[in-house]
Amino acid sequence: MTERVLIKDLAAREDGTVRVSGWVEKVRDQRYVQFVVLRDESGAVQLVNGGVLREPDPENPRSDILVPRTTTISELTHGSFITVTGELQHNERVKLGGVEIQIEEIEVITKSLPDNPVAGDSGIDVRLDWRFLDLRRPEQNLVFRVQTTFLHALRNLWVERGFIEIQTPKLMASASESRAELFEVEYFEGKAFLAQSPQFFKQMAQAAGFGGIFEVGPAFRADHSFTSRHATEFTSIDTELSWIDSHEDVMELHEELIVAGLTAVKEKHGEEIQKLFGVEITVPARPFPRIPLAEAKQVVKDRGYEVPRADADMDPEGERQIAAWAKEVHGSDFVFLTDYDSSIRPFYHMRHEGDANLTKSYDLIYRGTEISTGAQREHRIEVLEAQARDKGMDPAELGFYLDFFRYGVPPHGGFGMGLNRVLMLMLEQSSIREVTYLFRGPNRLLP
Amino acid sequence: MTERVLIKDLAAREDGTVRVSGWVEKVRDQRYVQFVVLRDESGAVQLVNGGVLREPDPENPRSDILVPRTTTISELTHGSFITVTGELQHNERVKLGGVEIQIEEIEVITKSLPDNPVAGDSGIDVRLDWRFLDLRRPEQNLVFRVQTTFLHALRNLWVERGFIEIQTPKLMASASESRAELFEVEYFEGKAFLAQSPQFFKQMAQAAGFGGIFEVGPAFRADHSFTSRHATEFTSIDTELSWIDSHEDVMELHEELIVAGLTAVKEKHGEEIQKLFGVEITVPARPFPRIPLAEAKQVVKDRGYEVPRADADMDPEGERQIAAWAKEVHGSDFVFLTDYDSSIRPFYHMRHEGDANLTKSYDLIYRGTEISTGAQREHRIEVLEAQARDKGMDPAELGFYLDFFRYGVPPHGGFGMGLNRVLMLMLEQSSIREVTYLFRGPNRLLP
Repeated sequence: MTERVLIKDLAAREDGTVRVSGWVEKVRDQRYVQFVVLRDESGAVQLVNGGVLREPDPENPRSDILVPRTTTISELTHGSFITVTGELQHNERVKLGGVEIQIEEIEVITKSLPDNPVAGDSGIDVRLDWRFLDLRRPEQNLVFRVQTTFLHALRNLWVERGFIEIQTPKLMASASESRAELFEVEYFEGKAFLAQSPQFFKQMAQAAGFGGIFEVGPAFRADHSFTSRHATEFTSIDTELSWIDSHEDVMELHEELIVAGLTAVKEKHGEEIQKLFGVEITVPARPFPRIPLAEAKQVVKDRGYEVPRADADMDPEGERQIAAWAKEVHGSDFVFLTDYDSSIRPFYHMRHEGDANLTKSYDLIYRGTEISTGAQREHRIEVLEAQARDKGMDPAELGFYLDFFRYGVPPHGGFGMGLNRVLMLMLEQSSIREVTYLFRGPNRLLP
Repeated sequence: MTERVLIKDLAAREDGTVRVSGWVEKVRDQRYVQFVVLRDESGAVQLVNGGVLREPDPENPRSDILVPRTTTISELTHGSFITVTGELQHNERVKLGGVEIQIEEIEVITKSLPDNPVAGDSGIDVRLDWRFLDLRRPEQNLVFRVQTTFLHALRNLWVERGFIEIQTPKLMASASESRAELFEVEYFEGKAFLAQSPQFFKQMAQAAGFGGIFEVGPAFRADHSFTSRHATEFTSIDTELSWIDSHEDVMELHEELIVAGLTAVKEKHGEEIQKLFGVEITVPARPFPRIPLAEAKQVVKDRGYEVPRADADMDPEGERQIAAWAKEVHGSDFVFLTDYDSSIRPFYHMRHEGDANLTKSYDLIYRGTEISTGAQREHRIEVLEAQARDKGMDPAELGFYLDFFRYGVPPHGGFGMGLNRVLMLMLEQSSIREVTYLFRGPNRLLP
């Protein structure tokens, strides 16, 4: 049997017999000719049946072949998976890739039900109900190829730098971040909780002397939100490194990773992204603009927007405003907001030597949305305990976490970044639902 | 300030001032000279203080520097993290890497408590209680560098082949494999379950036309076992590919991945593994031996061991016996057991055309232990439903899973492989506890 050829490789082949496999995207069943658009994981191609014969014809010596072939094509349902052998022909007039295949043999591998529950104008909920059909759209396929390329570029950089990949447990005996938004698991005779982040465990790698580490894995938040950027389960990109001087070192690594990821995506998929999403992938210049939060709030205020919050934090509109500023003034899609108030940061963020009200921390804003929080961590046990108490926590409750610091730990920092938010913003999608393989929210556990 | 140098890079540097950072592994506080063995994420080096001065000496012009330095070193506790600036000197007589550093400045970054709870002869449970200290041992550090290299080699191969990386949800509305060993999560007003494997979701990618896909992520089993190879949470390496002819295509990919992984590990860490574990990494020749399960049981019987099971399955001793046979007869550490009885395989494994009692499936045995199960999956909905009923399942309960097949799906197959088992066997360790970052079992949720 002829080897299967991926559709994307057809254009570079010489005319001749080929075998292709994929699913039926479109059928045009005309009186004297039948056309099938076949799609596989790499692209789409037009198949042609020139030998249409609808009734047995004793005078046509190929009647026994042509009639069943014609019938098979007439009865093809959208989405059915088929294998076709035929003659590849280059033809400039064929819009779809400049090639077509004259069908010789067609085999229906699995027939699809005729009623496609997802239509072009289906809402996001219907599309998520039938995610496997939704994912057949070329845009959706591209999202996950982009994801693959982006993550691989990050991992290449980490591996090049000697970072160690860890897999931290998602089952924990206590909270990893806060007691809110915690999922509880029945664990034999007791209880466990799902990790909200690998925070404590990636810091453990610092106490273990691992130096730089990274992890790409799930994180869980029992979050009731129904916004475009929240999920109860999401993919977290995490890294942590030792012997930093401040959060500036973390931001530098962060920039390098973003640049590596976007460079790879642009090289490999830039044209296709332009074509399917109308989006130009731009590789940001380094350094990304940095602005302390207090200054950022002043900039936002000067632009006519006063952040309506009692605490020192930004809000989503403030983030959009500061992003607009970064774009206008620095030509950048990215901006680091730095030096958050300690009142709105976790106890483990390191505070400034001269001003304990400020932390050595940052958020990274990409096209107006926060994608990441990073910081230098407090590694001095007595300061860490004081900061925990300062937040109304009982250090005893932090159990094993504080032990990490009692036996020595280097200065360190890192960040966590939401993969789905990055993809959403990169491809200018309206929701993380569009760029998550299977979205999970308060009302969504299926499929 | 001088840049920090990694210890592994010292040997290649010229003599001169360097700065190193790491933790104190050993102190020898002699009368006229003090030695410190400093370890970082890359190696260990000897630091020397030749200027020991224990009491202020008005006649020594450097007394103010030498006394505090001597005192600091005397008081160093094991595990404390320090930064040292000094003169690098190449010296062939120094066993540890042929270099040493004459200490000029020493700064204690974080002091360790003096009582190390982990001793050289501590049992595995004490070591797991203090995993972050246990991981400081060079052997443990190497395990995770090996893990990093192994996984990266696999991903390189997948990416090269155009496979798509997916992150499947770990929160599910129903079981992914069986109703047994299922963890239940309180999910808002309802219930969710933790994924036992990404099985259904990686098959969904096939229905979605993704072609080849891969995922490295956590899987959860509420398994009461306390064996050396079971955990309640483990890292599963999963892949699935379309348009295969049989499970043979899956085995081929499987071999290629194993060979790529072991080749990279041997190249990058072979010497160090030999030194620290006394283990020679060998890259297996392809194809790995394959033997149908029924024949394998006969071979084992001929070797004098009768598998004491009522069903058709192997048992651990049988696996060791067939591994010994593979080693003796084929010189291979790996052996595929193929064509398992359908009675002991899940309903979704494809059965042989000629013999419905046999499945197109396999287990991969590595040095006597099963590390993986693979198969061609049944993609014909009516056959799949019949096979589910045959197992006493109600197809209606399989809900969304069966929908994947109603709208067309290509022939496909794949495997799941336990990362920790692979590492355990590769490095000849006695338990997956030794090669898991933080082991989870029925009695272990901490740290």
